[in-house]
Amino acid sequence: MTRIAIDAMGGDHAPHEIVAGAVWAAQEYGVALELVGKQDRIEQELDRVCHEGFYSDCGKAGKQRRIRIDTSKLDIKITHASEIIEMGEAPGQAIRKKKKSSIVLAVDAVATGSSDAVVAAGSTGAAMASSLFGLGRIPGIDRPAIAVTLPTIKRPIVVIDAGANSNCSPEMLYQFAVMGATFSKNVLGIEHPRVGVLNIGEEAGKGNELAQHTYKLLEDHQERINFVGNIEGKEIFLSVCDVVVCDGFVGNVALKVTEGTSQMLFRMLKQEFKADLLGKIIGLLAKPFMKRIYTKINYEEFGGALLLGVKGITVISHGRSKAYAIKNAVRVAKEAVETGVNEKIAKFYEE
Amino acid sequence: MTRIAIDAMGGDHAPHEIVAGAVWAAQEYGVALELVGKQDRIEQELDRVCHEGFYSDCGKAGKQRRIRIDTSKLDIKITHASEIIEMGEAPGQAIRKKKKSSIVLAVDAVATGSSDAVVAAGSTGAAMASSLFGLGRIPGIDRPAIAVTLPTIKRPIVVIDAGANSNCSPEMLYQFAVMGATFSKNVLGIEHPRVGVLNIGEEAGKGNELAQHTYKLLEDHQERINFVGNIEGKEIFLSVCDVVVCDGFVGNVALKVTEGTSQMLFRMLKQEFKADLLGKIIGLLAKPFMKRIYTKINYEEFGGALLLGVKGITVISHGRSKAYAIKNAVRVAKEAVETGVNEKIAKFYEE
Repeated sequence: MTRIAIDAMGGDHAPHEIVAGAVWAAQEYGVALELVGKQDRIEQELDRVCHEGFYSDCGKAGKQRRIRIDTSKLDIKITHASEIIEMGEAPGQAIRKKKKSSIVLAVDAVATGSSDAVVAAGSTGAAMASSLFGLGRIPGIDRPAIAVTLPTIKRPIVVIDAGANSNCSPEMLYQFAVMGATFSKNVLGIEHPRVGVLNIGEEAGKGNELAQHTYKLLEDHQERINFVGNIEGKEIFLSVCDVVVCDGFVGNVALKVTEGTSQMLFRMLKQEFKADLLGKIIGLLAKPFMKRIYTKINYEEFGGALLLGVKGITVISHGRSKAYAIKNAVRVAKEAVETGVNEKIAKFYEE
Repeated sequence: MTRIAIDAMGGDHAPHEIVAGAVWAAQEYGVALELVGKQDRIEQELDRVCHEGFYSDCGKAGKQRRIRIDTSKLDIKITHASEIIEMGEAPGQAIRKKKKSSIVLAVDAVATGSSDAVVAAGSTGAAMASSLFGLGRIPGIDRPAIAVTLPTIKRPIVVIDAGANSNCSPEMLYQFAVMGATFSKNVLGIEHPRVGVLNIGEEAGKGNELAQHTYKLLEDHQERINFVGNIEGKEIFLSVCDVVVCDGFVGNVALKVTEGTSQMLFRMLKQEFKADLLGKIIGLLAKPFMKRIYTKINYEEFGGALLLGVKGITVISHGRSKAYAIKNAVRVAKEAVETGVNEKIAKFYEE
């Protein structure tokens, strides 16, 4: 049985929602858990999930329901961690100083083979740093990158790097392409995933030096990568490719702009409906439809980003993750383990 | 009377929609025009606007109406241009080769003082290159930049650079901050505009080298710039600042992602409403509300981007611009002329 280590103390709603989501996933996807954090807090939360239950916060057009899960029937192991890395701390320093922190010990669980993957919703920097130092890099990969799956008009698209590396070289972006395509094929099940470079125009000579050189590098390796050229920001959602490659700075800005734009549009629509009584009625009628869209594009549905390039599976969840998001993050971790995405990335470089 | 030169041949809907929009603006805002392009085509279009009329394509929640304008009462000058620069041409080469092209002659009209500003909807690169070579730079500015005004929850925000410069230095971004703030204050009427650096986190040390150094530079010049720190992608629409500074690559990606996200959300909502009969009815009822939002966030409403840093006013419109967008672009050009935004940028560097 696949076992997923969870940093139970990371994220805005830890440990309550984290433990709830992990247990929910254990029941739904049949995985074993290793909950890492303050033992007494975790035991308390497990007890709560079992007796009081918790509220599902998302999914199915936002229909809330109370969920109670009998934890005694699940394979749950607790690993005590006496320290917590807070959001503001410098990641590199923090993981060296706090060797008994929940994130460091959760990654250790994967390194020692006690678990198969780790899910973390706290500091992204700390999750990356502890994974990099605790698990090491896959040979052939210079820098791990964050792969995020986004909804589009048709099928989901992978954006890599979504924020791990602010300063990149063309060689790094080429490696991101390899990792993103491997993920798309194996975890999302897309045959011959089409890879594009995020750029500000279609033509080969467009964009900054990084985009131009990456274009050339990918063009030169078309026998191994299904390269389809440059992709503009507005095309990300049009299913013209399956993997978008960019540096972590641009990727992170792009993802957050998507989030900000959706939030603004939904807020504006709500405001518009409030203008008069008729509007209020129509708004009420339209609400379930809007909720369904909101659910479709919600980051919680996608369950977090995968840190690719380390020798182990690390899924990084949104800091605001509640139980539903954590449940999906565990699903992503399980799929990544079972499809052997890391082994396939490693194999690319062996051939 | 302020006279605006129009590249009548540029853009997907030239010359029909361009001429119509310019004439519409002349009537509505009381400006004189200099229409630059093939004389016979322009005369033909003017005749059409006068007799057959044209359709307003946007504004007021998408209510289409036919507009006929008596051009004989307006101050309209035609300047013949025998050449056109097409969208695919390399801008630098094209403007040197086609000295009789509509964009080059429209910029010339500003350079020689025959007009006060130029509006162009064709190739952005050609508009930039001809403006840079035809008008020259404002002393103190190394590279002109594109300022785009975006809707937010509260008041509009300026994003600079939106695509003129893919490779930037911190000094360039500092100059963009100066130009953006001057534009925000003088054209948008925002007192002490708050300037932020587009970044992937709030803290000073976040982001790539460019963002980090720009942060320091702006911090060191706080007596002249109202610098409020880093702004994340999702905060652009939350009115936490009035000017967002970034390199043209990131700015262009951010803008196009905004466009793409809105398009996808509206499409998804439409699809969702189509699911059943009840949905279709609710969708029909909700349509005017959605249209109003669409109008609010529509690029056509904002009338195009201003190229700041050249000695003259150049407004670059979306290639897909129709009459309504061109009308608004002329308004932006007029406001930029009358508020003397260039003189104020120049003054900043004289002090």
